[in-house]
Amino acid sequence: MSDSSQSPTSPTSPTSPTRSLAARAAALDAADQLADRRKLFALDDDTVYLDGNSLGALPRHVPERLQDVISRQWGELRIRSWDESGWWTAPERIGDRIAPLVGAGPGQIVVGDSTSVNVFKALVAAVRLLDPTDPARDEILVDATTFPTDGYIARSAARMTGKPLVPVDPADLPGALGPRTAVVLMNHADFRTGRLHDLAGITAAVHEAGGLAVWDLCHSAGALPVGLDAHGVDLALGCTYKFLNGGPGSPAFLYVAERHQDRFDSPLPGWTSHVDPFAMDQDFAAADGAIRGRVGTPDILSMLALEAALDVWEGVTVEAVRAKSLALTDFFLECVSAYAPPGRVRSLTPAAHAERGSQVALRCAEAPAVMETLIARGIVGDLRRPDVLRFGFTPLYVGFADAERAARTLGEVLNAVPAETATSAHAPG
Amino acid sequence: MSDSSQSPTSPTSPTSPTRSLAARAAALDAADQLADRRKLFALDDDTVYLDGNSLGALPRHVPERLQDVISRQWGELRIRSWDESGWWTAPERIGDRIAPLVGAGPGQIVVGDSTSVNVFKALVAAVRLLDPTDPARDEILVDATTFPTDGYIARSAARMTGKPLVPVDPADLPGALGPRTAVVLMNHADFRTGRLHDLAGITAAVHEAGGLAVWDLCHSAGALPVGLDAHGVDLALGCTYKFLNGGPGSPAFLYVAERHQDRFDSPLPGWTSHVDPFAMDQDFAAADGAIRGRVGTPDILSMLALEAALDVWEGVTVEAVRAKSLALTDFFLECVSAYAPPGRVRSLTPAAHAERGSQVALRCAEAPAVMETLIARGIVGDLRRPDVLRFGFTPLYVGFADAERAARTLGEVLNAVPAETATSAHAPG
Repeated sequence: MSDSSQSPTSPTSPTSPTRSLAARAAALDAADQLADRRKLFALDDDTVYLDGNSLGALPRHVPERLQDVISRQWGELRIRSWDESGWWTAPERIGDRIAPLVGAGPGQIVVGDSTSVNVFKALVAAVRLLDPTDPARDEILVDATTFPTDGYIARSAARMTGKPLVPVDPADLPGALGPRTAVVLMNHADFRTGRLHDLAGITAAVHEAGGLAVWDLCHSAGALPVGLDAHGVDLALGCTYKFLNGGPGSPAFLYVAERHQDRFDSPLPGWTSHVDPFAMDQDFAAADGAIRGRVGTPDILSMLALEAALDVWEGVTVEAVRAKSLALTDFFLECVSAYAPPGRVRSLTPAAHAERGSQVALRCAEAPAVMETLIARGIVGDLRRPDVLRFGFTPLYVGFADAERAARTLGEVLNAVPAETATSAHAPG
Repeated sequence: MSDSSQSPTSPTSPTSPTRSLAARAAALDAADQLADRRKLFALDDDTVYLDGNSLGALPRHVPERLQDVISRQWGELRIRSWDESGWWTAPERIGDRIAPLVGAGPGQIVVGDSTSVNVFKALVAAVRLLDPTDPARDEILVDATTFPTDGYIARSAARMTGKPLVPVDPADLPGALGPRTAVVLMNHADFRTGRLHDLAGITAAVHEAGGLAVWDLCHSAGALPVGLDAHGVDLALGCTYKFLNGGPGSPAFLYVAERHQDRFDSPLPGWTSHVDPFAMDQDFAAADGAIRGRVGTPDILSMLALEAALDVWEGVTVEAVRAKSLALTDFFLECVSAYAPPGRVRSLTPAAHAERGSQVALRCAEAPAVMETLIARGIVGDLRRPDVLRFGFTPLYVGFADAERAARTLGEVLNAVPAETATSAHAPG
């Protein structure tokens, strides 16, 4: 960190920082109520996997479960599995498995399609919820710092609904709300910095202004309590391949608050969202409930891998996961302070717990070379160009010794990789 | 059939129809150049699987291949697989595997999303291709007899682009084309009747009228030559879980003719269609080529199961598949004529080869009970409510003895299931 004197384990302490932090890590791991979860995942001790915020690790039981889906359900039962193996109802059944993790009651979440497609459904549907009652309320506000797909799709939704798109920095959001605010699309946690936005406060402010709040939960679902119902969120969506460990590109989810379901008018009214799909009726009549958010035939293999992966949550609360996540990122930041040469990395992740997701982002002028070397040494984070080192902490399988080892290796790598310039790591942002 | 005297094996022939047709089936199977393909699929001899037009059978090698994708690529390589296992480029790589089966040169097909989502992309993009040059050309024509999702999504695309939707019976299409024709969406093969529409002739007529032709190939891709490039089709899409055996809900494909790619303007411009996705740029700039048809993060498990499944096409031409398909459906119709009690079933599938897809649809007043009994006896077709028995013929794994057994069992079942009324099976349609 830029000021290593903030570290509680300064070079003057009687034991070396390494021994002291390693000992503390061991004690923290020994006291960790979630430590037993790690054995549920396919992980080896040579690797510290801190990229679960990009692709969650494989739960060990998933291959066998998917083998059954492929060889028996598809291979033997074939078409009968749409009924007999529960394929047809998978989108809403798996939605109900995700629901408690994001604070939603049953019947409000369906799984399917990509995050991008769900952003489109949610924004267009939100505009349509408001349009008949207040057509002058026309602005679609979108987080200007968002993961780019949300911005691209928001621009398309605005273009296709004829509404103006207003990109807003989250810090400026309160001042941007007003009588023209129709829909606000925000990321709960920023993909780059790990900053957690105030879902409860922003949702309340959007409602106060008369608009609807749509949340992208890609970087918070499975990492921390979201409280969709409690905070009155209108629509939400998120991916399932990060902290929910659903597998590469596993289907996303869409939340439609119960009070909006009767008037949810999808721009993608595919046949599986019809009230009676097998009537093959030429006229569309929407199903009741969140099923309106379905579109085409569900991709069963990806979907049932996700369903199996959700078993790792049995007996675990997202509150416990959150407590460990904060302890882990606190401890990692402390270790980085102790181990990193002064001035070489600077945390972009807020220190305040209420503003922190489940990752740590470090700005580093030599980030590409540093991350390449880290990965070669078994510390798997990722790079966000041009100069951000990202380290994701999935409490179900990352421990405190992992955090200590990652920070220690980072310190060693920084000492080995020459600094590019004296000042670039101190650039603002 | 309604007139069994048309059968070449009338009751007066010296051998019984059963022996004669069974013997011919055996001879046809013995001469079948594709007969060796059946062993590539997970099928048992107790079942005649005639529902490959709904869900293709499992190729035997897929479970092992997907096990590698899950356990090694996801489980061990994890995030590295986006590069090292070729995950990132899977949509266009698999598109290029499908391309020769539908008569497309490379670089024009991407795989991803559902058929419904791809109908939306194609229709909106087609409207946008025309809009700047000829805004008065505004009508979106859609097959009024189509699989319903196409009609539902076409209605949404029309609503969102502000264009009128004109449902047209395919037989009336020539008269409906004119100076207002913008886009025509047709199914190549009708899901209910198995009727094959004249892709070459209709595409030429649409072009003659100044419009663009979009084809849904769900029921023809992998069943017969399509000739997308040769016939100048503009945009096309289709599913991969029927005659391409990609697995339940496997991702669909989208074809964008090379000449349209520069101006293809997707309504779903997700981050993976960006020219430099990992720049995480807030401004959208579309990639070159068919990659513009991509949207979100690809669902790798479903997608790589499809990729593996396409191996069954090695060394097989779709022309050979078509020849066997026509021979199979001819023979099945002949067997039905011989075995079915007079007046109980009537074929909705055209007799002319040029008008027939790869299924036979039989109207039968007692269809629900008949299909239930057929399935219980190992003849797996399906029902399209209220009164259509569908039998799909996948030449890679269905043989002539299967066709004979299916028709013979149908005859037995019809003799066992009492006729509901004397006339209902003769209703027009």
